[in-house]
Amino acid sequence: METMTDDNHSDNHSDNHSDIHDDHHDDNGTSRFPAGGSAAVELGLDTFGDVTAGPDGRRLSQAQVLRDVVDEAVLADELGLDFFGVGEHHRDDFAVSAPEVVLAAIAARTERIRLGSAVTVLSSDDPVRVYQRFATLDALCEGRAEVIVGRGSFTESFPLFGYDLGDYERLFEEKLDLFARLRTGGPVTWSGTTRAALEDQAVYPPPEVLPLRTWVGVGGSQPSVIRAARHGLPMMLAIIGGDPMAFAPLVELYHRALTHLGQPAMPVGVHAPGHIALTDEAAVEQMWPHYSAMHARIGRERGWGPMTRAQFEHAVGPHGALMVGSPSTVAAKIVRAVAGLGLSRFDLKYSLGTLPHDQLRTTIELYAKEVVPLVRAGLAAHA
Amino acid sequence: METMTDDNHSDNHSDNHSDIHDDHHDDNGTSRFPAGGSAAVELGLDTFGDVTAGPDGRRLSQAQVLRDVVDEAVLADELGLDFFGVGEHHRDDFAVSAPEVVLAAIAARTERIRLGSAVTVLSSDDPVRVYQRFATLDALCEGRAEVIVGRGSFTESFPLFGYDLGDYERLFEEKLDLFARLRTGGPVTWSGTTRAALEDQAVYPPPEVLPLRTWVGVGGSQPSVIRAARHGLPMMLAIIGGDPMAFAPLVELYHRALTHLGQPAMPVGVHAPGHIALTDEAAVEQMWPHYSAMHARIGRERGWGPMTRAQFEHAVGPHGALMVGSPSTVAAKIVRAVAGLGLSRFDLKYSLGTLPHDQLRTTIELYAKEVVPLVRAGLAAHA
Repeated sequence: METMTDDNHSDNHSDNHSDIHDDHHDDNGTSRFPAGGSAAVELGLDTFGDVTAGPDGRRLSQAQVLRDVVDEAVLADELGLDFFGVGEHHRDDFAVSAPEVVLAAIAARTERIRLGSAVTVLSSDDPVRVYQRFATLDALCEGRAEVIVGRGSFTESFPLFGYDLGDYERLFEEKLDLFARLRTGGPVTWSGTTRAALEDQAVYPPPEVLPLRTWVGVGGSQPSVIRAARHGLPMMLAIIGGDPMAFAPLVELYHRALTHLGQPAMPVGVHAPGHIALTDEAAVEQMWPHYSAMHARIGRERGWGPMTRAQFEHAVGPHGALMVGSPSTVAAKIVRAVAGLGLSRFDLKYSLGTLPHDQLRTTIELYAKEVVPLVRAGLAAHA
Repeated sequence: METMTDDNHSDNHSDNHSDIHDDHHDDNGTSRFPAGGSAAVELGLDTFGDVTAGPDGRRLSQAQVLRDVVDEAVLADELGLDFFGVGEHHRDDFAVSAPEVVLAAIAARTERIRLGSAVTVLSSDDPVRVYQRFATLDALCEGRAEVIVGRGSFTESFPLFGYDLGDYERLFEEKLDLFARLRTGGPVTWSGTTRAALEDQAVYPPPEVLPLRTWVGVGGSQPSVIRAARHGLPMMLAIIGGDPMAFAPLVELYHRALTHLGQPAMPVGVHAPGHIALTDEAAVEQMWPHYSAMHARIGRERGWGPMTRAQFEHAVGPHGALMVGSPSTVAAKIVRAVAGLGLSRFDLKYSLGTLPHDQLRTTIELYAKEVVPLVRAGLAAHA
């Protein structure tokens, strides 16, 4: 199941190597990011505001889910996690359609945690509006905002906002180009086919910290990786199936492309789903009914077959994408991904369909209190 | 100077009377509003996030102004005021371009105060996005959100978002029609010329309290008044020049039109600029340099002559639109407007160009602690 972008990441990975590969992350615009693969990796959380089940097993209202998301973010901040991201959808099973509004409420109740979208569906929005909302958020939280822009894995936003899926590629390419200019501040001159041209246009509010921290969400296709590099933007990989290490060639491609295109070194992050409980068995058993139901629901729309229990158990195993289990199991999997891919950031997508709020809170607590120290120790030992 | 809509309210006021006029406000969709002209009138504040002068006299950054706006709203809530509104602009002299993002931060730090836009420039935005942002805000603040939609008095948003000022009338008419459908919840079917059609389209998140409280901001033209009535929406009059009582015929027209069109009775509110200090003289002297500079700045764009001190003193006088002076002076002017026009709400636009944050805080304190009790007592005596 693909939930951050529609890129098919199960094939076409490049395994070319190049002698111009440069994995040194310098200060050229990236000094706000930790070095890749180190114990200073940022460890965060993502949610789409998945509509959860209440105590009676029935789905809660989206309004209640939105309030629960704020509660979860406040907990994450209190426990010292580095990042909290909310992803935009336009469906009855995900409550977040206006990420920055949710993030602004979180901003007002948190002190330190970075706040972002995961992702903003840039293709079906206006880059000027997206910039304005995030620049406003960044002002309100004094520089803690960041944007992860993507093409969107779900297609609901296209007809809703009057876009043609046939323009999928051009919409994202043009809008990313404009957004990349807006984030650096100052008047913008731009023209394209997907919105009105701008000529020496100031856009308000001006960014207070330059540039507005921005990632490109990538599912796994080579063209998406090269596009992120071409715009000189950090890459956030959504790894929701397969072995995370299968993405190593894409990460190498990204770094090589940056060098080849004369861009400074940039960080790479990963977003992956997971669930944590006191034991592996408890985590797996809690997650399975909710995850399999979500997989079946989305699969019906996309023509997937149902997920078998055997497939699920493979995905939660040591080389699978799902970060599920006890704190030590999950920490070991995150260390493997962070060290193996040289990540500067790992975000656990902790909401999983109808999995209830209290179990999400438990995952957040175990992640912050147990997994994070184990990951930092594991990476320090690795270094 | 017109700051909420572009309607010219200095002429064309109807003074027709009709025997079908019905000023009884019943419960038909309006039970969340107090009855017009009573001591239960809601008393609120509006700001556009005017970029203020810092202690050294230089203009602050828009980011700092946005944080100051949140501080002012928190003070207003602590002091028990009923409403706090922020208006959308796209200029270097007003910091709020994304009202709901600012309001969500305020929502998280307040308990009781209602939160809204003043106004949302609906003509140059997408009604679906506006609905989503406000429904999200309403969920986060548990039903305290309201929208004041308007056409916008400034024109910057039209080229910025790719709209033609030649479509000014059609854009607002169509978008108001769509927004009025969205606010009542449930799937929407709509088609028009200014955005993509929707067919039985659910929009998320669903409203938790139905319908989403919505006003139409009106500058003073008869067609705008009748449009608000036709959509069965409450009317918020921007009175920023002339005698407030000159608007009585428009208010009567609104009530008659509601009745004639078979709509339930609806409340009327007024937004007017003002400044409060311990004495009339202090309020006038504090306001004058900032207000006259703002008037000159906007006047240069619109071809107005400079405002003379005599014109200003007339506007701050007993029959002028500006609510300026000591608490008792301002209270008397508000009582006259509320009782005379049968208002359910009065919002003081307390930000005035570069007038500094500390003086804005003083206005808020004097308004809440002294003006509000005087207004309530005055209205009770009036009844």
